[in-house]
Amino acid sequence: MWNPEDVTSYNVLVQVHLRPGIADPQGATIERSLATLGFPGVSDVRMGKAIVFTLEAESETAATAEVDELCRRFLINPVIEDAVISMTEADRAASGR
Amino acid sequence: MWNPEDVTSYNVLVQVHLRPGIADPQGATIERSLATLGFPGVSDVRMGKAIVFTLEAESETAATAEVDELCRRFLINPVIEDAVISMTEADRAASGR
Repeated sequence: MWNPEDVTSYNVLVQVHLRPGIADPQGATIERSLATLGFPGVSDVRMGKAIVFTLEAESETAATAEVDELCRRFLINPVIEDAVISMTEADRAASGR
Repeated sequence: MWNPEDVTSYNVLVQVHLRPGIADPQGATIERSLATLGFPGVSDVRMGKAIVFTLEAESETAATAEVDELCRRFLINPVIEDAVISMTEADRAASGR
């Protein structure tokens, strides 16, 4: 049974990048442009997505499992994308402890 | 004078997010969809960009200054976006030391 007193909030960051070997036209364009704009030391530019959200879960284990499933099912395309997940506890006070 | 022996490579990650208060329709759509798809604990979804690249610079100070200028001038729109920069030294071997 879900009880609002038992939940903890987590700040979650999901970084999504194209897998190595997948063409990244946005990154390539930025790299070419920066070289002509006076930043010749920049290379290997890859453009990805950063999705941040707050997740309420009963424990860190439950939160990790939920974020993993969420990424796998909805946030990333595993054929062409990789995800890096980072999670920090947000606010113990909100859980009433 | 630029000497390839003196440079160090840095792995740079620039996270770009819309400033608080700026409407984020992508994030709002994800949030609404996830609630109906069985993830009711997800809130405050914000969709941003994650740009990764390698930067060659003479020192960490020079690298930080270059990334700051690069973000200010090209990678972000400071009117509506905020950037979070993280940088790690990539490969001392490549610098010949």
